[in-house]
Amino acid sequence: MARPKPLSGFPEFLPAGRIVEQAVLDSLRDTFELHGFASVETRAVEPMDALTRKGEITKEVYVVRRLHAAEGEAADDLGLHFDLTVPFARYVLENAGHLAFPFRRYQIQKVWRGERPQEGRYREFCQADIDIVGEGSLAEHHDVEVALVMLEALERLRSELGVPPVTIHVNNRKLAEGFYRGLGVEDHLAVLQRVDKLDKIGPDAVRALLVGELGLPGEASDKCLALAGITSPDESFVDAVRALGVRHELLDEGLDALASVVRAAAAVAPGRVVADLKIARGLDYYTGTVYETELAGYERLGSICSGGRYDSLASDGKTTYPGVGISVGVTRILGVLIGRGALTASRSVPTCVLVAVDSEETRDAALAVARRLRARGVPTEVAPRADKFGKQIRFADRRGIPFVWFTGGDAAGPDGSVKDIRTGEQLPADADRWTPPPADLRPRVIPG
Amino acid sequence: MARPKPLSGFPEFLPAGRIVEQAVLDSLRDTFELHGFASVETRAVEPMDALTRKGEITKEVYVVRRLHAAEGEAADDLGLHFDLTVPFARYVLENAGHLAFPFRRYQIQKVWRGERPQEGRYREFCQADIDIVGEGSLAEHHDVEVALVMLEALERLRSELGVPPVTIHVNNRKLAEGFYRGLGVEDHLAVLQRVDKLDKIGPDAVRALLVGELGLPGEASDKCLALAGITSPDESFVDAVRALGVRHELLDEGLDALASVVRAAAAVAPGRVVADLKIARGLDYYTGTVYETELAGYERLGSICSGGRYDSLASDGKTTYPGVGISVGVTRILGVLIGRGALTASRSVPTCVLVAVDSEETRDAALAVARRLRARGVPTEVAPRADKFGKQIRFADRRGIPFVWFTGGDAAGPDGSVKDIRTGEQLPADADRWTPPPADLRPRVIPG
Repeated sequence: MARPKPLSGFPEFLPAGRIVEQAVLDSLRDTFELHGFASVETRAVEPMDALTRKGEITKEVYVVRRLHAAEGEAADDLGLHFDLTVPFARYVLENAGHLAFPFRRYQIQKVWRGERPQEGRYREFCQADIDIVGEGSLAEHHDVEVALVMLEALERLRSELGVPPVTIHVNNRKLAEGFYRGLGVEDHLAVLQRVDKLDKIGPDAVRALLVGELGLPGEASDKCLALAGITSPDESFVDAVRALGVRHELLDEGLDALASVVRAAAAVAPGRVVADLKIARGLDYYTGTVYETELAGYERLGSICSGGRYDSLASDGKTTYPGVGISVGVTRILGVLIGRGALTASRSVPTCVLVAVDSEETRDAALAVARRLRARGVPTEVAPRADKFGKQIRFADRRGIPFVWFTGGDAAGPDGSVKDIRTGEQLPADADRWTPPPADLRPRVIPG
Repeated sequence: MARPKPLSGFPEFLPAGRIVEQAVLDSLRDTFELHGFASVETRAVEPMDALTRKGEITKEVYVVRRLHAAEGEAADDLGLHFDLTVPFARYVLENAGHLAFPFRRYQIQKVWRGERPQEGRYREFCQADIDIVGEGSLAEHHDVEVALVMLEALERLRSELGVPPVTIHVNNRKLAEGFYRGLGVEDHLAVLQRVDKLDKIGPDAVRALLVGELGLPGEASDKCLALAGITSPDESFVDAVRALGVRHELLDEGLDALASVVRAAAAVAPGRVVADLKIARGLDYYTGTVYETELAGYERLGSICSGGRYDSLASDGKTTYPGVGISVGVTRILGVLIGRGALTASRSVPTCVLVAVDSEETRDAALAVARRLRARGVPTEVAPRADKFGKQIRFADRRGIPFVWFTGGDAAGPDGSVKDIRTGEQLPADADRWTPPPADLRPRVIPG
């Protein structure tokens, strides 16, 4: 067949890019597990009625059916999941009797959306979610916790792998609702919906909507806009809100809750979490804290990590399961960083040592050295052909393999000699003792 | 919503089962990377024409389309991949200019088949594949290599995780073809096709087909059946074949190739690889070595790990890419072993330590201890509520968390005391020094 073309919206990495992605996923997993989150993996498909419950999302779903579905078999009743929240809510209900609550889980999987592809927006992409779900109730300190766990995870990606720093923007839906109610507004969602357009249409247009469509007095509209304009990396936002002179019990609750998130975050990673009172996350199922995240230098990607508190992640009619969670768009970040060469791997293979082969007759000696190195955890392969040594060294060089091992030769140790092909240094070597520098053992993530 | 029911053929694990699966996948990955295989992950979908090239498989494909595909948009042109070989062949062609050959890759992903579900047969399942692909040519020693790498991987699953032992059955398609040609048969595939039914219909029925349908003389038919009956864990099969008195150049090639696989395997893991001259792998694209694998005690599952040599994994008209690979059905093994409780995890969460909370006022002290433990790699969570200590201990016990840490108390170390809730032993403790026994640090896989 002719050379196939990539499918728009379905990114795939070359081996070096995949090494970067694996390092990112390993790091996320390690942080989540250090915090006691258990891994869950759900099937790729859900019944269509579970996926289309929220009208808006319907157009993005991929329907799945058997090519030769049997006569009478419901053919179109499955779709690919478009996030990991809907499947997780179903998993919690399905397995509630076998889970211990509060249940902490992380989930790292592909999701699919039939959106128009563009940079940072894909039709197939990988998300990493953490959620804590309670049975009946869930303490508010978990809102602080999930933000800090995700911040720690993203900070490790920065310090260990060179991913740009992030800023998590936090708000609380109770704060806005309480504020609007304190202004005498009854339909607080109608106000939120219009204020949510601030970034798109600007303050004047939002004010016009509030006054024109909702009949809000000019002064109240100004206060709504003033509230949305408040942002601070510390608790000073509380005074700024108080200065607007609005009072409501729910507003106090929201201010307290948001202040505890910002205070705790400032102690762990100053400046990385800011209170940002315009964050709404649309009219989604969130009911308390909401999170959005910007990647420094890549703000145009939009939020790379979002989430919040939902009073009812799931309910079976008898029991309600409230939750709080946050989700990072791994492919959204890496598609751009790897695609533009900002991150790459120190080599394109796991191999640390290539054992050269003198001739096909002595291949067994090379295989034996390789086996002993692997037994001590050194990724090793044996040259595929007994080419001239120069060619075998080029074989290693093309892949970025740092060491070539020669089983014979003059200045040889008990098992020959090993050459660092970057420096040319060649030393006698023993396959039961030689160890590469720790930085060379596995491929590293480096700036492109 | 009411409690959802599982979807037949789409297995999902509870958290303890998922820990087993992760341990298996981590172990496979580590073995593959020690041998220099690079990870590749391909998109879940392929164009339907790539998936349906082999007539037989068509009925198993899941078609994927956007629920609201635009007018005129080809709606049904994508399907979920049913194996990892078709996507990998496409990946090799698409990226040939960026890959270094021979290219060694492993790929661990879900695949989908619309088959009727039964134990060990799923509609969504995870496979782990290794392949080595050459550009133009590929040396035969790689046939030995992939069998040994997979054997090493499966042996580690046995010795480290308690997966039952395997037997890899190996044959070589050249051996059978050469033997049939040596008997004067022209359409060797027609013979192979009938001999392949041996397990299903028995030797008498196969003989009847060879004589009746293909017009093979009785004596030649008997020899074909005799060949299929030969099996040995060492090179003695060569003499057994020779004793049948058939001669052909291709037969010699096949015998040599198969003997090297069996010889090398016997040196590494005696008895685990047997020459089995009835193995055909259908009329698939294999052209040399073929592998099938039985799991001891679960032979009824059929082959849990199969593969072989294909002279043309892919071709763009100018260049042909021969390959050799082998694929293990991870879900086929684990669906049964976890489902029947033969394998489970020592606990259902990654957490090693639960830090108890005296009161909500002192939660920060508990959080600080947890932070210091995590900084030293100890998975730790903090109790969600300041319940009575007995209740907090039961919280840990339900999840299998082995240690509960109390930040205050009488016999306390600098950071309180830590209690092994299995033995009741409670010792003064310092969060910068205390270390759990290595076996308790992470959940372990244990017999169910």
